[in-house]
Amino acid sequence: MKKLTLLLTVLLLGAATSLFARTEVERWGCFELRLNHAAKANPFDVALSATFTNGDRKIVVRGFYDGDDTYLVRFMPPVEGEWRYTTRSSAAALNRRSGSFVAVPPAAGNHGPVEVDGDHGFRYADGSRYMPFGTTNYALALFRPETQEATIHSLAASGFNKTRLCVLPKDYPTPLEAPTIFPFELRSRTVDAEGKEHFEWDFERFNPAFFRNLDHRIRQLQELGIEADLILFHPYDRGMWGFDKMPEEINRRYLDYLIARVGAYRNVWWSMANEWDLVRNRTVEEWKDLTRHVAATDPYGHLCSIHGGTAVYFDYGMPEFTHVSIQDEAPVFTASAAATLRQIFPKPVICDEIGYEGNLPLRWARYSPQLMTYYVTNGLMGGIYVTHGECYRDPSEEDFVYWSDGSILRGGSWQRIAFLRRILEEGPNPPRMADVSRDTKTSTAGDGYYYVWLGQSIQSSWRFNLPASNARYRRPQEGERYRVDIIDVWAMTVTEVPGVFETTKPIDYRLYDKHHRDVRLPDVPYLLLRIRRVAE
Amino acid sequence: MKKLTLLLTVLLLGAATSLFARTEVERWGCFELRLNHAAKANPFDVALSATFTNGDRKIVVRGFYDGDDTYLVRFMPPVEGEWRYTTRSSAAALNRRSGSFVAVPPAAGNHGPVEVDGDHGFRYADGSRYMPFGTTNYALALFRPETQEATIHSLAASGFNKTRLCVLPKDYPTPLEAPTIFPFELRSRTVDAEGKEHFEWDFERFNPAFFRNLDHRIRQLQELGIEADLILFHPYDRGMWGFDKMPEEINRRYLDYLIARVGAYRNVWWSMANEWDLVRNRTVEEWKDLTRHVAATDPYGHLCSIHGGTAVYFDYGMPEFTHVSIQDEAPVFTASAAATLRQIFPKPVICDEIGYEGNLPLRWARYSPQLMTYYVTNGLMGGIYVTHGECYRDPSEEDFVYWSDGSILRGGSWQRIAFLRRILEEGPNPPRMADVSRDTKTSTAGDGYYYVWLGQSIQSSWRFNLPASNARYRRPQEGERYRVDIIDVWAMTVTEVPGVFETTKPIDYRLYDKHHRDVRLPDVPYLLLRIRRVAE
Repeated sequence: MKKLTLLLTVLLLGAATSLFARTEVERWGCFELRLNHAAKANPFDVALSATFTNGDRKIVVRGFYDGDDTYLVRFMPPVEGEWRYTTRSSAAALNRRSGSFVAVPPAAGNHGPVEVDGDHGFRYADGSRYMPFGTTNYALALFRPETQEATIHSLAASGFNKTRLCVLPKDYPTPLEAPTIFPFELRSRTVDAEGKEHFEWDFERFNPAFFRNLDHRIRQLQELGIEADLILFHPYDRGMWGFDKMPEEINRRYLDYLIARVGAYRNVWWSMANEWDLVRNRTVEEWKDLTRHVAATDPYGHLCSIHGGTAVYFDYGMPEFTHVSIQDEAPVFTASAAATLRQIFPKPVICDEIGYEGNLPLRWARYSPQLMTYYVTNGLMGGIYVTHGECYRDPSEEDFVYWSDGSILRGGSWQRIAFLRRILEEGPNPPRMADVSRDTKTSTAGDGYYYVWLGQSIQSSWRFNLPASNARYRRPQEGERYRVDIIDVWAMTVTEVPGVFETTKPIDYRLYDKHHRDVRLPDVPYLLLRIRRVAE
Repeated sequence: MKKLTLLLTVLLLGAATSLFARTEVERWGCFELRLNHAAKANPFDVALSATFTNGDRKIVVRGFYDGDDTYLVRFMPPVEGEWRYTTRSSAAALNRRSGSFVAVPPAAGNHGPVEVDGDHGFRYADGSRYMPFGTTNYALALFRPETQEATIHSLAASGFNKTRLCVLPKDYPTPLEAPTIFPFELRSRTVDAEGKEHFEWDFERFNPAFFRNLDHRIRQLQELGIEADLILFHPYDRGMWGFDKMPEEINRRYLDYLIARVGAYRNVWWSMANEWDLVRNRTVEEWKDLTRHVAATDPYGHLCSIHGGTAVYFDYGMPEFTHVSIQDEAPVFTASAAATLRQIFPKPVICDEIGYEGNLPLRWARYSPQLMTYYVTNGLMGGIYVTHGECYRDPSEEDFVYWSDGSILRGGSWQRIAFLRRILEEGPNPPRMADVSRDTKTSTAGDGYYYVWLGQSIQSSWRFNLPASNARYRRPQEGERYRVDIIDVWAMTVTEVPGVFETTKPIDYRLYDKHHRDVRLPDVPYLLLRIRRVAE
């Protein structure tokens, strides 16, 4: 885990200072240039950018106004070495400010931003593997500070390495859950005769305090090794504030400001929207334009997708979408169905909403922990990723629902997901079906490394057998020796089966143990068998 | 059914003749202009086209050489009225030939070419609905004439309204099945020391007799109301003739010739390939180029797709692909899985290969008739289409496998598919899931028109219930009255359930009968309930 100090803030008291200071920032850390200027007009209208160069590399980033006559330029160095910069601005005080810093090797725990690896995987920029095991905390940075802290605390203990959070406030039915801080400057707040509040915003002026809090939460997540999948727009405004129907130029101004602020944080992902199809009056073409705007503005190429309502699929063929982020449960009904999505899309697929574990009366918010675990495992075994969420409401406690409000985890699936993460990270590759569309139970993680997912069924024994196909890996051969582990996903135990199994030649598309031996199984559901070839 | 005479051949004995004859051709019929010219060099190299005009409409089509010093220009008039034409050619004898004909109203049974209707349906050009219920006869036009006739005869009695056939010969393991006629002029045929045959083709010269036979079979299918889904390339050459690895310019020359010949037949669809991924040495980009070539060359915009190996999905987002044609069984394991494909693709989806009913030792060719029927119904209920195929080989009979060789239907699913076609054509719209990704059994065909597919399970009764959601149709309301039919898909019977059911208001996302009545069911699988609102 990294220290907050890794995020180095460089206070330049004058241009001359840079001649003497050797500023160091980790590769993929955040260099920050702080400049002062008292703008005469709207300080958010002052144009500011900086060009960072390292040898032939040149990256232009925007700066932004952070209140109190302060302008910031943030930059994430993608390679080590000396980086020089020069600013450009419409304000003389901010123009032609130059200097340099040295990007030093990353500290332990800093693997850089996550990127796509091959057709269906992810990796960190340093090449180490990343498999998303995410959860959902829509209002992570929007609630009372103590709730925000509690959420961060719960995430730290959870095993999740990604969470989905909204940038813009979300309307809630209860006053307890009303956001207290907003992204724009409030012009007026009035209450009409029916008691309904009316907000009028100055969309030309951001509220730096709102965004400083967001910065802080993203950096906290970064410290914990958790990717921040930022939901840029959503329909959960319900006429409260109008953030779901801002003019297009304000949408872009908001995106530019946000990207300038948090784009230099390596753990940021862009989710163009949650339930884009429920945002009224915005066409598919407008979503595409906004997506292209984000991709063109972000100098780092952070991961980017868009998420719709149940079983609503956007055109994920757009090159700006690095991966597929969907809301749909049908693909996790079986590993086979999940595998079909993997086959269709030449990009990683994340079922970012399959419904949630919880006890709410809504049908998407009342899965048992077992069902949630089952669905997550189905997706993983099919070669896609599945995001967790929790919707418990306990009348005896404060009225928090983790999926949205944050606070503490109460359910039973998150521990199993953390357990699955540990198991799958031991494998040589993320799982995928070994014999797609034919064998609905066997997944492969590579040469001589399989899982057999028995799911909800209870069976007293399993006859050793493997498919002759093995995705694109080397096929199993006659005379190979395998060991089997019984992984009880619910009990979170791993039991090694005594003895070694030796394969026959393929018989009608499958290989068996040459003595046709069975594995005795406990009479419980949610068993995952792990079958690994014994080294010669 | 149409008469062969509808396909009018106009013999122009001289240019002057056209001044006196009033030639009539049905709208969407085929006008044919026949011209004579003895070419000095390769007659296939003579450029010939014709411009057809009707008011502001102008369509340019290519002509082609049909052997015996004869050149043909075929044209399908898309609207009624007088069409005038003028030819252009590099040969003076074929140049500036002009004339006219009158496109008259189509006869009964001529509905025009099939086109896409909305996001997921098909219709004929005259607006009448088309739902594909297809089968597979790869070598329909490639075998001995008596086998070809037998296949046509079996199709006439089958109820299928589409079949998939290869244009280019397919290699078979047995001599009985060796093609006897080829698309190119044979230069030499030699047998080497190991007894292997070697063919050398003149790829610059087509074999008109081969293509005349193809014309004839397509027209026969047209007479039967059967769409001809022409497979333009395939990998089933296995080094026999080299048709799978012709130079790109020969591929295009072949496509141009074929489109000029059969493009004017209204029942033609283009399938760029079967199992495109198994054709060696052709890249995805080359397939895309060939597809764009077909779309740019075909003046009528016939339906076009491409078909891969098991669970291999092309980039169906290409605008040239009118629909998705795939080989995959996982999408028909359940109606829900099928529905996911419908949700993903904003185009009609046809599972053109889910494996086949039959008795071959290969796992994709040994489905029981029940399993085939089950899969087909799953797909249909999920809102996609599924293609039949039959792979029986009876050692006591001649060695024909219907899926490939043709001849006669022997299995048990084709009759059920014909029955399902009749049932579904009675509905106001093709089925789709009523409450996608949530209710895995109920499909809707519109306002007050549902199916509940019980699939392989046997249950003694069904409690009347409907989902509160109804796709994009009007939702069911409290106090509506419904009748229920029990459709036994396997027995091919329809039994009306006595009495009328009256809906409650929605209770936890579903409506029930206000008296909570059940429907007694026979103890058999493959039951499809049809639930229709009673008119007020």
